[in-house]
Formats: sequence, structure tokens, C-alpha cells
Amino acid sequence: MILCDIGNTHLHFYNGSRVWKNSPNALDTSKLKGDLYYISVSPKNEELLIKAYHPCYNIASLLHLESAYEGLGVDRKAACLGLGLKSGVVIDAGSAISVDVMDQGVHVGGVLLPGFGAYQQAYKSISKVLDHPINVRVSLDHLPKNTAHALSFGALKSVLLVLTEIIGDQKAYFTGGDGKFLASFFPQAIYNELLVFEGMQHAIAQELENLKS
Amino acid sequence: MILCDIGNTHLHFYNGSRVWKNSPNALDTSKLKGDLYYISVSPKNEELLIKAYHPCYNIASLLHLESAYEGLGVDRKAACLGLGLKSGVVIDAGSAISVDVMDQGVHVGGVLLPGFGAYQQAYKSISKVLDHPINVRVSLDHLPKNTAHALSFGALKSVLLVLTEIIGDQKAYFTGGDGKFLASFFPQAIYNELLVFEGMQHAIAQELENLKS
Repeated sequence: MILCDIGNTHLHFYNGSRVWKNSPNALDTSKLKGDLYYISVSPKNEELLIKAYHPCYNIASLLHLESAYEGLGVDRKAACLGLGLKSGVVIDAGSAISVDVMDQGVHVGGVLLPGFGAYQQAYKSISKVLDHPINVRVSLDHLPKNTAHALSFGALKSVLLVLTEIIGDQKAYFTGGDGKFLASFFPQAIYNELLVFEGMQHAIAQELENLKS
Repeated sequence: MILCDIGNTHLHFYNGSRVWKNSPNALDTSKLKGDLYYISVSPKNEELLIKAYHPCYNIASLLHLESAYEGLGVDRKAACLGLGLKSGVVIDAGSAISVDVMDQGVHVGGVLLPGFGAYQQAYKSISKVLDHPINVRVSLDHLPKNTAHALSFGALKSVLLVLTEIIGDQKAYFTGGDGKFLASFFPQAIYNELLVFEGMQHAIAQELENLKS
């Protein structure tokens, strides 16, 4: 069994022991075997996967998360379900950075920030003078003294301060491409590359349980 | 005499008593009279003005600001010069939000954040599901419970927290399209629509003084 999390920029696969990612336009199906269960936030990328491999099953309808939030993305749902009944803040740092607060299995609410790539797009949309890659290793100890640093400082500081405020003294569970890096700023952080997949596994196990009874 | 601050999205004019703005592609020259002195961060919009009206003089070379910052935008320079010898933080909240720290006439360093329009572009660049206008009146008292609120909360909270951290207990001088609104969050804030123009006036006066002596 293969699990797949179809995002806006990448598809992430998990075969129970290893995680790997593919660009949507460079799908390598040689490592895929047997049934593939997926969730998707990108209809376009979902179509590319379905064309490239089968059998594929969309398991969005199996993800049951108690929440008053309308329109919670299926990837955020899966990451939150990955916590089981634990409480804390779930941060999925990819194209967007989602910050969701969980209280004993119940989703309390959440915030969205641009991912660092999207910050670059934001600055670029203002002026080509502001078109610099975001360097997340920029020093936060001193006020920037050039434009490239000023942009990177602005993006990194924004993300860290919002995370600090929302996390407070709660546990923080990080996942996603920039998750490991961002987790390093928080002593109570746990980085879990598999959080979304564990949420999917949890949902599948629950469904099998329901079918038995 | 007319002063003009040519930005990336608008041209702002000042005739000594009134400020008004024009879109670059809908320049109304009926209110312009006599010499026009300008600064510009947009070569494209600068060209449109020069074609539409003369005599126009670019006074960038008159703006002398002591700073170790490389490549400080001429509009940020002007806003900082608008402080004279006062110390504090200068926030120009337009297409981008610039945050510059001034210590008795000397520029210490600065940070750039996306303006709220650029935040919208950032989210939109990730997915069309995230294409919502930023509502800066979003409540910050409760965690968002839908996507539109989650995006607006993320953008507004990011900007406010970075400003809070950099301003600390210093005086804060706000200008630009969102300056008045952002100033309302800070008890020690002063909103001055004319800050950039006062910096330009200061530079012109200084030059006249130098010519006399």
C-alpha cells in the first residue's frame, strides 16, 4: 500500500518505510506498487497522478475531524488527525504555512501564512527590485543593512512571531518542507515528517474498524 | 511648486496644501502648475509622468541620508529625512511596508514586509482557493474558522507583530496608504501623510542653503 499527499507544488509518497516527493510534471511511477490511497488539494495534480498510475483511491471522505472551521483543507485535516487525541499546535510548512490548534482531537481554529516561496512572490509582485530569494538563515540579531536581508528578515520574523504567539506554551508539531527548520526555533517542538500520512493511516484504520462492526 | 512621489502603483502629488494621488495610466495633469520636483522608485511610471508634464526635475541626488544600508529606496530615504533630527521608527505602508529605524538623523537599518495587496498576491500564487482580498478589519481576538479569515488574520497579525517588536518603546511615524490604519494599533504612533514630502522639502531647502553659502 502506498499513501500519497498531493499538494500544490509536489506530490509526497509514503510506502510505510520511506517518504519521497515528485514534481507533478515529472512523476516517476517506477516505485509505485499495489493500491495507492491519496488526498489532494490540487485537482490538476490529482488528474496527473490518476493518468500516470492506477489503482488510485481518494480517501478524503474517510477523514473525519471535529471542527467548526469551514473549508479546512484535506491536508490540514490529515495533519491534525495525525495527532490522535493529543493537544497542541500543528504547523505544516510548505507552499503555505498552516497553523492549526488541536484540543484533544477537536480542531479549534487555524491561521494561514504564506510559505517562504510565496513571500518571494509577494515581494516580486511589488517591484523587480524586490525580487530576491528568501534566505531563511538571515541573522535576526541585527537590523538589515541591504534589501536582500530586509526582505528575508521580514519574512522569517513574521512567520516566527506569529508561530510564537499562537503556540504559546502548547506543544508544537511541525511537518512539511520547512517544518524541520522552523521547529528548531521552538524548544517544545516535535518535527514529524509523517504527520499527514499518520493522519491518513489513522483514518483508514478507523474505516476498517467501522466496517468490521 | 508641486512635489511628486512616484511609487509602484500610484503617483502622489503635493502642492503645499493638498495631497492627491493618480494611477500611472490615468494621469490628470490639470492640477499641475509650475515646476514639479519628484522622486521615483518606478522608472516606468517616471517615464509616464515626464511624457505627460514638464518641467519635471528628479531630486533624488539632493537626498542625503547618513546610513550604512546599501540600496535604500529613495522614497524610504525621503520619509526618514522627514523626521529631521528626531529619533524613532518610520513606517511607510504602501505596496510594500518599509520599517526604518532612525537615531538623531542617522538611519540605523530597516526591514521590508509585503503590503496587504502583496499578501493577497502571495496567497493567490499558492492556490486559487487562497485568492481572497485581505480584510484588515478581521478580528484578532479569536482563532479564524474559515479560509478568508485565516488569510487576513495571518497577514495582519504578521505585520503588527513585526512592527511591535521593532518599534518597542520608540516613537513611531506612520505614512502611506495603510499608515493611518496601522498607526491606530500603537499608542505612541504619529500618522503623517506628508512625511515623504516633508523629507523632499527638507532636502530642497538644504540645497538652497548650500547654494547661498
